[in-house]
Amino acid sequence: MTAYKDLSKEELRKEKEQLEKKFEELKAQNLHLDMSRGKPSAAQLDLAMGMMDVLNSTSNLKCETGVDCRNYGVLDGIPEAQQLLADMTEVPANQIIIYGNSSLNIMFDTVARSMTHGVMGSTPWCKLDEVKFLCPVPGYDRHFAITEYFGIQMINIPMTLDGPDMDMVEQYVNNDPAVKGIWCVPKYSNPQGITYSDETVRRFARLKPAAEDFRIYWDNAYGIHHLYDDKQDHLIEILMECKKEGNPDMVFKFCSTSKVSFPGSGVAAMAASPANLKFVREHMRIQTIGHDKLNQLRHVRYFKDIHGMVAHMKKQADILRPKFEAVLNVLDSELTGLEIGSWLRPRGGYFISFDALPGCAKAIVAKAKEAGLVMTEAGATYPYGKDPNDSNIRIAPSYPTPEELAIASEIFVLSVKIVSLNKILESK
Amino acid sequence: MTAYKDLSKEELRKEKEQLEKKFEELKAQNLHLDMSRGKPSAAQLDLAMGMMDVLNSTSNLKCETGVDCRNYGVLDGIPEAQQLLADMTEVPANQIIIYGNSSLNIMFDTVARSMTHGVMGSTPWCKLDEVKFLCPVPGYDRHFAITEYFGIQMINIPMTLDGPDMDMVEQYVNNDPAVKGIWCVPKYSNPQGITYSDETVRRFARLKPAAEDFRIYWDNAYGIHHLYDDKQDHLIEILMECKKEGNPDMVFKFCSTSKVSFPGSGVAAMAASPANLKFVREHMRIQTIGHDKLNQLRHVRYFKDIHGMVAHMKKQADILRPKFEAVLNVLDSELTGLEIGSWLRPRGGYFISFDALPGCAKAIVAKAKEAGLVMTEAGATYPYGKDPNDSNIRIAPSYPTPEELAIASEIFVLSVKIVSLNKILESK
Repeated sequence: MTAYKDLSKEELRKEKEQLEKKFEELKAQNLHLDMSRGKPSAAQLDLAMGMMDVLNSTSNLKCETGVDCRNYGVLDGIPEAQQLLADMTEVPANQIIIYGNSSLNIMFDTVARSMTHGVMGSTPWCKLDEVKFLCPVPGYDRHFAITEYFGIQMINIPMTLDGPDMDMVEQYVNNDPAVKGIWCVPKYSNPQGITYSDETVRRFARLKPAAEDFRIYWDNAYGIHHLYDDKQDHLIEILMECKKEGNPDMVFKFCSTSKVSFPGSGVAAMAASPANLKFVREHMRIQTIGHDKLNQLRHVRYFKDIHGMVAHMKKQADILRPKFEAVLNVLDSELTGLEIGSWLRPRGGYFISFDALPGCAKAIVAKAKEAGLVMTEAGATYPYGKDPNDSNIRIAPSYPTPEELAIASEIFVLSVKIVSLNKILESK
Repeated sequence: MTAYKDLSKEELRKEKEQLEKKFEELKAQNLHLDMSRGKPSAAQLDLAMGMMDVLNSTSNLKCETGVDCRNYGVLDGIPEAQQLLADMTEVPANQIIIYGNSSLNIMFDTVARSMTHGVMGSTPWCKLDEVKFLCPVPGYDRHFAITEYFGIQMINIPMTLDGPDMDMVEQYVNNDPAVKGIWCVPKYSNPQGITYSDETVRRFARLKPAAEDFRIYWDNAYGIHHLYDDKQDHLIEILMECKKEGNPDMVFKFCSTSKVSFPGSGVAAMAASPANLKFVREHMRIQTIGHDKLNQLRHVRYFKDIHGMVAHMKKQADILRPKFEAVLNVLDSELTGLEIGSWLRPRGGYFISFDALPGCAKAIVAKAKEAGLVMTEAGATYPYGKDPNDSNIRIAPSYPTPEELAIASEIFVLSVKIVSLNKILESK
């Protein structure tokens, strides 16, 4: 295919006419399609329905230490749940605390605590004139929303195929004591599906932060969320790597079963060094008497162990993979060679990231909406909702059916083409 | 019985000898008894075991608006759970938000949010030189722990049989803009079992706070936790009362099913005015994508409605009542007339409050511990753990069996007698 930029004005106008005709046809179908959020489909949730049966009124509801899971207590979570989530996130079971249903909530609370109480004895951030977080971009909108809510200044760090630009990260972290954190989705990143390279993880572990209370917020949301059995990314375990480099306290690691069992009814956890966890517990024992141990028990009784969980994730992959491929195939066949956008082929996670021509993302999302396709708002993958190039669009293929995705992708590529054509025509 | 203070030194010494002999006999039994926390017994939890069966893999897991409770979303909680907890706490269903498993966690987060973001536009408390909370005493140690954790200055307000000393409350709230809150357990209070009188609630509603961000923290933990079918306290609903008095935004009301279904696996909620809830949601939508809707559904399917819940609580009362009476009977028969302590007869809640001779509480709790009886630490019912009179002891009769309570009460009264005798002898 010829790149749009190399077409004549006349050719572009002709192409545009055809595309708009097709678009109007689709629009006339009054479709309602949603590729906006990383939400599992009903079929995926059905896979975990056995979890609703493992506890019943005849079950033994004691955990392995004999504690009645129906009653108060056990702040760190029941030991078998600690083991399961520790295996899931590849840390020792004594370095993890099990929380409620939401890892986002743990991250929010971690920042909130730092605001009011600092980190392991440091000055509370609310007493400082300036607090900064590094934000690899494109990234996860809900991370950025937390730091924005607390008035923390966010600094964009461009993502490369190996993870965040580590020259910039080192420059900021090692020199500016106002830099207190960095948001990372290190495996199958949101939205690009990039896994940080070994070298990137090692450079993280070797940081020499100017701030004693700098922490890496390592949101390992997609640690076991592979799309393929054969092609899988590997991520070096960051806690151990930091320990080796003499930086044992530099990481807070987060995970949850939201996209393993049920979103909203899963189990979330934080892993960190013993010193960090000690500090965290001082806060947590004031905040709550304990989290939902019956739900922890339900998860362990259902998955049994990490092998059971991995086997479960393969079934999820069988549902998700065709969806990713449906979208990617349309992008490949319809956009390759036109030079009006680029995208990656993730091996896991929940998203496909699309980079349109600069200045086109908002218009593309708006155009798609005209035909009944809801996308993540353009800009959402950047702090403050501001994509400086107005280029990045997050595609979330998990929720619709493959049939819906076929039409949705068609609407999407038509929108990309039409908006890009207009842009190119303008400049001709 | 003759009051100890009226006995001669000789009589006191003789009495002491006999008591210590009895005490040593009990001590020799190597008992392990616990009256320290308001923890339901296994028998009480067994009453709710049917809840483990209402959801299974064949259940319809959609809430009444058709939302799949297994997936993300629905920040305020599912409507049927809002209705159930609204009825439980006697407010309209649109004035309640359903949270996770812990009302303590909601209260903590409410104070934390006020520290970093103020209340409905007020200055964040972390920017103020001085923040004060009023603390009716004796009160709930975990309330005081929250305010202490955030460095909030706590002011003791003595409890009367009608609730907090309202002259003092009005004096502080209406004149000191640093007073931002008051901790209340208005029904079957912890630890005294006192229900605030109609006049007390009305005086609360008529407060004219010097601080715009003053709120009443109304922890209605024992709203439906009656011990008797015939003798029940009634508490005026505070939100409506405040609305009538032109103070609609002055209250945060908290409740949970921790002591209705399962502690740690219940459902908690906050009720407040629409304006307060709007402000709260701005925070909450950053903190989480939503709480555990399956557990909300489980509660509604099990209890069905408030009538089902009230019927359930009657069964709990049948288990709790004999326990309270076992303890109260021993206090009555063993201590009446000795003038070494006083106590109330609660009609609900989880505690009996005992006031020893000034300067004796710590020694009594220590003495009881010698014989294997763990009580709530003396002082715990006061801010900073400091009971100025060293007099109040909280008795929690819910967890042990009635048989264990008979022995535990015996150890307790022996400890009271011995410590009081020593005190009186010292001063003779």
